[in-house]
Amino acid sequence: MSSALKAPLNKSLKIALVQIKAGADKAANLHKVTQYIDNAVATSTIGKLDLVMLPECFNSPYAVDQFRNYAETIPAGETTELLSSLAKKHGIFIVGGSIPELAPEEENKIFNTSLTFSPQGEIIAKHRKVHLFDIDIPNGITFKESVSLSAGNKATVFKLGDFGNIGLGICYDIRFPELASLASRAPHNAFAMFYPGAFNTTTGPLHWHLLARTRAVDNELFTVLCSPARDVGGNGYQAYGHSLVADPSGNIIAEAGEGEEIVFAELNKDLIPKAREGIPVHYQRRFDVYDNVVDNAKVSDL
Amino acid sequence: MSSALKAPLNKSLKIALVQIKAGADKAANLHKVTQYIDNAVATSTIGKLDLVMLPECFNSPYAVDQFRNYAETIPAGETTELLSSLAKKHGIFIVGGSIPELAPEEENKIFNTSLTFSPQGEIIAKHRKVHLFDIDIPNGITFKESVSLSAGNKATVFKLGDFGNIGLGICYDIRFPELASLASRAPHNAFAMFYPGAFNTTTGPLHWHLLARTRAVDNELFTVLCSPARDVGGNGYQAYGHSLVADPSGNIIAEAGEGEEIVFAELNKDLIPKAREGIPVHYQRRFDVYDNVVDNAKVSDL
Repeated sequence: MSSALKAPLNKSLKIALVQIKAGADKAANLHKVTQYIDNAVATSTIGKLDLVMLPECFNSPYAVDQFRNYAETIPAGETTELLSSLAKKHGIFIVGGSIPELAPEEENKIFNTSLTFSPQGEIIAKHRKVHLFDIDIPNGITFKESVSLSAGNKATVFKLGDFGNIGLGICYDIRFPELASLASRAPHNAFAMFYPGAFNTTTGPLHWHLLARTRAVDNELFTVLCSPARDVGGNGYQAYGHSLVADPSGNIIAEAGEGEEIVFAELNKDLIPKAREGIPVHYQRRFDVYDNVVDNAKVSDL
Repeated sequence: MSSALKAPLNKSLKIALVQIKAGADKAANLHKVTQYIDNAVATSTIGKLDLVMLPECFNSPYAVDQFRNYAETIPAGETTELLSSLAKKHGIFIVGGSIPELAPEEENKIFNTSLTFSPQGEIIAKHRKVHLFDIDIPNGITFKESVSLSAGNKATVFKLGDFGNIGLGICYDIRFPELASLASRAPHNAFAMFYPGAFNTTTGPLHWHLLARTRAVDNELFTVLCSPARDVGGNGYQAYGHSLVADPSGNIIAEAGEGEEIVFAELNKDLIPKAREGIPVHYQRRFDVYDNVVDNAKVSDL
């Protein structure tokens, strides 16, 4: 129980979720990102921001026949360079949603990839979506990322400066509880899971809030989900919106609507110890009955 | 994907949840059980019942200083004998909530134990609560089962006649996702998790529906929760009530209020294939990235 005394979040974290939508014009998408990040920093209602988060696929339409057209190499690539410069300019962490990544060293495959930047502009994490979004709901939504994307092969947990560690997954990854479980447990001890994600108007109403709240409650950490804004009237993929933050007890403490919007939230460092002392599941698991999923897990070290 | 074609639930299952409360008079508690099971069978609104489920701790007050006074050995014990006779009389399965079990062969320890009976009156499953309910929420609820109870050391999955397999946990066990995960996966392929459970007026509003729905969605199976009725005006433990069934997409298809009540529900065999074909997480897990919790799990073989 001694680890109960060590809070995984060392100091409260002030964040902004930038819920914007991408169109066909990549330059316009990147211009919008710059404007919104500048605005988030300038208009923060909670004091100086520590972190800004972008949605999944913010520089490209979300469409299997478009990913390759918008893909960039990493770290050399205009989107990576822009986010690095914005992080440095504002002295903030940026959880850079996701972009289509072109990987010349891997047979020119395309990945759905999320980068996180330090306040010094350095890449401190890179996650390639592990679970591709291949679903087919009659009269609902059909989408097959695997038509043009390849899947990553590692979970991602990394150090967010002095705050502590966070885990990161992309969208459909949230449906697989193992990523949050392994991030929350020793030796990683993440204080939050960040999920850039574009649920849609079928799966969003069904499961978006449910999954955000449960990953939080089962692991007693924060979950942070950032969605694109809905493209009302558009003829492409209709993102659900509703970017949100759930606290370690499963309460939704900040939530966007469906349009373009910036949501601010403070991740209070006291809430994790409070949740874990009240309902101490974090210390009561029975690894004599079932294995601990963090053992043997493949976790990215960047 | 071939296992996609095999439905884990071979035919639809008609069940009744008997939401009753127990008092200090054990004989009266057992008399009430008999009346309610007889009534469930006689008044079914969905045709002939296949199964009746009772709540956690239906023959005893839910109190750490009372469990030993009400405990019985198994299989010799009046509660076991009564449920066996009722299952046989009505030709139904009975998921016998839970009772305090006295284990003379194990240093007279007391366990929180659930028995399931076949329509022939035989015990076909025995689960001892694996995760004891030890919590302390300031200004909420404090309870420590471990003061007088010992914990079981196996997960439980078993064959429910021709219907298929089910997993079973007791109350606080639902907070640990591993039990439902391992039950839902090969070789067990359970079509439902049954949880007799007595959440309370603090934890119930926070998490009862959330956990029921998520265990269902993450594993694409039914979850069935049966609670004691609330003891309004009583000075003991206040159960939450709200016995319910969630379908494999996370919809709540039947739910009780807070008082004594029988809830009927049909578990439609078509809903699991429908959920798994629409959102095929059941076949997309990445056991090359994280281990499969069913491997090495200790599962009861009765």
